[in-house]
Amino acid sequence: MDDTRPQPTPLQADELRNMDRFWRACNYLSAGMIYLRANPLLREPLKPEHIKRRLLGHWGSDPGQSFVLVHLNRVIKQRDLNVIFISGPGHGAPATLAHSYLEGRYSEIYPDRGETEEGMARLFKLFSFPGGIGSHCTPETPGSIHEGGELGYSLSHGYGAAFDNPDLIVTVMIGDGEAETGPLATSWHSNKFLNPARDGAVLPVLHLNGYKIANPTILARIPHEELEALFTGYGYKPWFVEGDEPEKMHQQMAATLDECIDEIRAIQQRARQEGGNVDAQRPRWPMIVLRSPKGWTGPREFGAHKIEGSWRAHQVPIADPATNGKSLKLVEEWLRSYGPETLFDESGRLVAELRALAPEGPRRISANLHANGGALCKALDLPDFAGYAVDVSQPATSYVSPTDVLGQFLRDVMRRNMTSFRVFGPDETASNKLTAIYEASGKTWLAQIVESDRDGGELSADGRVMEMLSEHTLEGWLEGYTLTGRHGLFATYEAFVHVIDSMFNQHAKWLEKAKRELRWRQPVPSLNLLITSLVWRQDHNGFTHQDPGFLDVVTNKSPDVVRIYLPPDANCLLSVADHCLRSRDYVNVIVADKQPHLQYLDMKSAITHCTKGIGIWDWASTDLDHEPDVVMASAGDIPTMEALAAVEILKGLFPDLKIRFVNVVDLFRLMPDSDHPHGLSGRDFDSLFTTDKPVIFNFHSYPSLVHKLTYRRTNHANIHVHGYAEKGNINTPLELAIINGIDRFSLAIDVIDRVHRLRGVGDHAKERLRDQKIRHLDYAHSEGIDSEEIRDWKWAG
Amino acid sequence: MDDTRPQPTPLQADELRNMDRFWRACNYLSAGMIYLRANPLLREPLKPEHIKRRLLGHWGSDPGQSFVLVHLNRVIKQRDLNVIFISGPGHGAPATLAHSYLEGRYSEIYPDRGETEEGMARLFKLFSFPGGIGSHCTPETPGSIHEGGELGYSLSHGYGAAFDNPDLIVTVMIGDGEAETGPLATSWHSNKFLNPARDGAVLPVLHLNGYKIANPTILARIPHEELEALFTGYGYKPWFVEGDEPEKMHQQMAATLDECIDEIRAIQQRARQEGGNVDAQRPRWPMIVLRSPKGWTGPREFGAHKIEGSWRAHQVPIADPATNGKSLKLVEEWLRSYGPETLFDESGRLVAELRALAPEGPRRISANLHANGGALCKALDLPDFAGYAVDVSQPATSYVSPTDVLGQFLRDVMRRNMTSFRVFGPDETASNKLTAIYEASGKTWLAQIVESDRDGGELSADGRVMEMLSEHTLEGWLEGYTLTGRHGLFATYEAFVHVIDSMFNQHAKWLEKAKRELRWRQPVPSLNLLITSLVWRQDHNGFTHQDPGFLDVVTNKSPDVVRIYLPPDANCLLSVADHCLRSRDYVNVIVADKQPHLQYLDMKSAITHCTKGIGIWDWASTDLDHEPDVVMASAGDIPTMEALAAVEILKGLFPDLKIRFVNVVDLFRLMPDSDHPHGLSGRDFDSLFTTDKPVIFNFHSYPSLVHKLTYRRTNHANIHVHGYAEKGNINTPLELAIINGIDRFSLAIDVIDRVHRLRGVGDHAKERLRDQKIRHLDYAHSEGIDSEEIRDWKWAG
Repeated sequence: MDDTRPQPTPLQADELRNMDRFWRACNYLSAGMIYLRANPLLREPLKPEHIKRRLLGHWGSDPGQSFVLVHLNRVIKQRDLNVIFISGPGHGAPATLAHSYLEGRYSEIYPDRGETEEGMARLFKLFSFPGGIGSHCTPETPGSIHEGGELGYSLSHGYGAAFDNPDLIVTVMIGDGEAETGPLATSWHSNKFLNPARDGAVLPVLHLNGYKIANPTILARIPHEELEALFTGYGYKPWFVEGDEPEKMHQQMAATLDECIDEIRAIQQRARQEGGNVDAQRPRWPMIVLRSPKGWTGPREFGAHKIEGSWRAHQVPIADPATNGKSLKLVEEWLRSYGPETLFDESGRLVAELRALAPEGPRRISANLHANGGALCKALDLPDFAGYAVDVSQPATSYVSPTDVLGQFLRDVMRRNMTSFRVFGPDETASNKLTAIYEASGKTWLAQIVESDRDGGELSADGRVMEMLSEHTLEGWLEGYTLTGRHGLFATYEAFVHVIDSMFNQHAKWLEKAKRELRWRQPVPSLNLLITSLVWRQDHNGFTHQDPGFLDVVTNKSPDVVRIYLPPDANCLLSVADHCLRSRDYVNVIVADKQPHLQYLDMKSAITHCTKGIGIWDWASTDLDHEPDVVMASAGDIPTMEALAAVEILKGLFPDLKIRFVNVVDLFRLMPDSDHPHGLSGRDFDSLFTTDKPVIFNFHSYPSLVHKLTYRRTNHANIHVHGYAEKGNINTPLELAIINGIDRFSLAIDVIDRVHRLRGVGDHAKERLRDQKIRHLDYAHSEGIDSEEIRDWKWAG
Repeated sequence: MDDTRPQPTPLQADELRNMDRFWRACNYLSAGMIYLRANPLLREPLKPEHIKRRLLGHWGSDPGQSFVLVHLNRVIKQRDLNVIFISGPGHGAPATLAHSYLEGRYSEIYPDRGETEEGMARLFKLFSFPGGIGSHCTPETPGSIHEGGELGYSLSHGYGAAFDNPDLIVTVMIGDGEAETGPLATSWHSNKFLNPARDGAVLPVLHLNGYKIANPTILARIPHEELEALFTGYGYKPWFVEGDEPEKMHQQMAATLDECIDEIRAIQQRARQEGGNVDAQRPRWPMIVLRSPKGWTGPREFGAHKIEGSWRAHQVPIADPATNGKSLKLVEEWLRSYGPETLFDESGRLVAELRALAPEGPRRISANLHANGGALCKALDLPDFAGYAVDVSQPATSYVSPTDVLGQFLRDVMRRNMTSFRVFGPDETASNKLTAIYEASGKTWLAQIVESDRDGGELSADGRVMEMLSEHTLEGWLEGYTLTGRHGLFATYEAFVHVIDSMFNQHAKWLEKAKRELRWRQPVPSLNLLITSLVWRQDHNGFTHQDPGFLDVVTNKSPDVVRIYLPPDANCLLSVADHCLRSRDYVNVIVADKQPHLQYLDMKSAITHCTKGIGIWDWASTDLDHEPDVVMASAGDIPTMEALAAVEILKGLFPDLKIRFVNVVDLFRLMPDSDHPHGLSGRDFDSLFTTDKPVIFNFHSYPSLVHKLTYRRTNHANIHVHGYAEKGNINTPLELAIINGIDRFSLAIDVIDRVHRLRGVGDHAKERLRDQKIRHLDYAHSEGIDSEEIRDWKWAG
């Protein structure tokens, strides 16, 4: 503790006493959730049968979290603040549950857990009980937008919530365990992207609780000077609240919180009076380091072991009260130390003078509408996407960059929604050819700006394009932004979207619970991921930049919440993007490349095609009014072009061959309708893919994914998938296609091999196709580029 | 620049001049690689036909990197140092390639790119050319252990290389773009895990190059005081080398490097003289901040655009010299500014006085054996794993924690290999029940230690168990450790291994290239991942902790380098672990839970079973000498138990039913032998799974993965997989099994449904099984735990 700082005592004796009692009530409930299945108010002596059969839950960080919540209530009431709270420490739900229960919000949502002795008993019982209440701040938790089951994302979620919410203060409690993760460690730099004029404030509270599961934490074990330097270096003004004596700590915390709120308001006022021109000076936002003992106010020791202030307080501090009399006594003493009889009235309700400490209505942290973002969400004002259509008079004869076109649409989406739409990208917005967006808004940047920065997308505090070289931070911001009811799109290199695999998993799980099980949670905007700089055009960047496997991760998540689209051209991309921006409660994954690609469908056809999600392209098929000999299917831009080129080759070689061309935009169409709401019925699938003809499927990603989705289809044994076979290097696009077998020649050869009546008669043709492969490879290897014939290939019709 | 610091000038005029020339030679080669396909020494005027057809490569960070390399050479020679260099900035290969070429090492490995004009021309041509040389520090790059295709891992790789290499200095060049990533931001804290007595040193050089692809970097745009505070806060002593005048910068860098090496040696000497007791005081290791212009020494501007010192220098600074005379002239001027005719002799070889600047033999950074770790690798001294066997007199009648047993084996592995084996875990070694390891060695910890830390696995500078709450850092350390020839194992919660999906992808790609294409790279120890705290026992931790999908990511990588094992019990786990610790050049993924589980096989049977990787368990089968009615298959511990329990139920219901029980340890056995070296032939697969009988497969992970691996098998249409269906909450283990359908009752019902002759006759049994499910769920929901009957179920035989 910094003892040179004078110790102000802003709390009057009564106020302090009641705040401490409210805090003790929180702590009592937290401990009760972990231990009790009956006798919730300890109206009788504690007996083994009152103890839960299975003791689950995490005590360690609860008192520290409740401490902060109690103090937040004070400033919310005093100043009529708009505050939400994000609980970063793992398994810290008892604190937030207790607080929301004491605020009355919990019982409003879950009337079976009312503010009565019986309701409290039920809350206790259901906590960490099968089918009951989770030990993280799950979607079921009032006031939560951050579950915290996986650590590392609290602070980026907090910043995401604060963007474009000028009135909001997001308090983010960060566990010192969580603070060791990479995503958290870099998310401190989010302060370079927060505009005090336009955005709300984030108040990080680093909880130096001292221990993780079984180890001390790094930040709790470095000298004070290093800790202070670290947060100064991150650009904050750190305040320290350190100690273990409740009375002193209450005064310290109250004083510190007053200072921090004053600073926040001063920063905002300064920026807002200056009319938003804050480029000149990035503010040093306050943050708080709260150093308190792990398991504060819990048992000090048990036998020879220290508990309070050690890792032993992390989970259940006393493990065996049901079977060990000494333990039972200790648990009872601990629980009674909070004086439940002085905190709750006869009916089991918090006494009136403590209830009065909580804010009212939606000012309660647990009832703040920002934490149920769907309730505040407004639909985007979208321009007509058809207005951005690329002219396609003949299919497959012109080249356009799909993301370039999308950028123009997004530019106008942004212009119409300047406080509720943002685009995110890891320093790749320009690389991914979404540059048109900069015409609507520059890049957010609160760090130093120099003259030459004007050259290229402009940097300013007012920018709405978010670029930081951290996929974790961007994804966290976007999750926080959408969970508080706003809209966005995150564009990233395909290979490196794997960086956020785990964040995607966690967000999908959140959406599923919220959507399926919680009627009180309003639908939130979907999280839109644009995956670009795709494998097939990462030929020049090499093997490390070639990984289309994110789709496998996505298909493992619940069909209720995930969607995958592979628009083959710019008009389809526009149609898909419009659909995704309107949708709610999904993760939409859009796979579209940035390079110039062939355009296939005019806008009307594109809309029809994307609405169906899968369909026969008559213009590319030769089986009209006939049963096909073979189905050529494709999903993805380059695979579609190669598949068409193969069809053209085959048409030249075998004019009588009946080829049906099928293109897939909505990948889940391939699944049975019993397994996915977008799935095709068996009859519809069979009518497209036949029940017995060979299907050559040219796929964007790893081939096995198509098998994973179609293995139950009638004709599955005849579906032969070409896709990325994990082969790459520095290549040309054609070479990369050839070594993985998705090129036109390999496809044509496969058709010849699979269509019975071509066997034998096609041998000579196969030979010529193999020669062509070699000829084109030779050219690429001598010139370093693909031949014009390949690069500028067009459908001859 | 800190102008208050006096500016020493350690370099004599001649030395400075030659070092500058060597640097210019590096820069010349870097630029040459990007632009030239002929006329490599500019012996004739530059013409369009000398320019590559496709300009690829990244100029921006090359001069800064070469600058550091030139200065490293000086101190290596002067002090006979053992130094490797890790290149963090993306696409920075031209610098390291140039340096290794000038050191002669490149031509030793690739004689077709010799130290002649012709060799240089070939080097230039092949760079970023199809089938040629990558633009990252790929495995093909001499001296590299870090490709840097994906950003964020340079520093953790560097620390991994330094552990247990007391003599080694690992210089890690960190791009200021990379520094924004989460993994990099937390890896600075690795200094709390480096023991100066026993480990080598890491010298980070943060390259404040100023710009990423299209944006300034955060760290280049915060005030000097913040930057200094940040690294002080991270626990380093930062040195600043800032400027753009080569002469001054050389003197500054030389002086700074001298100081840093002096500090490193002083820290090490102090620690080593004190006999390794460094617990008392964590050293403040030096680090360097090098602020130099992006594209330093390149063209200053082009038209109205600033190039040097801007993001426009990131990649190819002048885009069109082949078609634009003005551009061609500028490129020629730029290249000639280095004076190639003064740097290379008639034959094209670096002139002798510059060659003399490079160290010799394996002291060359590009030839250092630590960067070809297999060359230094010694096999582990392994105790006989059979000595740790669990006694299994009757299959499936006793419960043991598999990881607890493994911990005992690993303890002794560690004891026998105290300088070449480490265990890594994100604060979960104890939670994952590997606590026996602490008997061999405590946990590495160089931060503050307090008295109560003795309570639990001991913390000390000498510990060899690495625990930090960052999966990224741990994985990075282990990759660095194995790539430099040492051995290790990383144990982590199953759900959160997704955090390192992308790191896994990148490491697998590295291994594949090194193994398949580079004979000069010696095999390195496999990277062993123990995935534990498995989905089926994360019932109490809830939905966020349930994600077995990492295996899907793994199966997308090359069969040459990935292995997946699901040992069903402790003895199998021992056998598998022994196998993995002996192996080279793989990523081995071992899936084994930490909870007490039924034990099935005695050691002898376990060895046989694991050697085969898949097999029939006769003792659990009822089809002896008969064709089975049904095959019950399993992979994973809990799925195996439930499958056995189902068999027992079915035996009771239908004594005549012929059930074959198959267990899978080595998951890739399921694949065709044409697709994976571990794959079973069609005949072997069919002999196990039949060609027409129903197969009920109870699987650890998502069911579709089994289909992905088996879709080409004869009997695939009859394989019915039960696995995780993305359904979870706070549950009991049985409840979790039931809602996902992997429980004994659901399996038995499925058998009744699938076996023709049971249809109808089994209806009553199905009814009873459904009742049993409900009864057990009711018990769990009232008591919060599973009934003893379920929890303590044993095979009755």
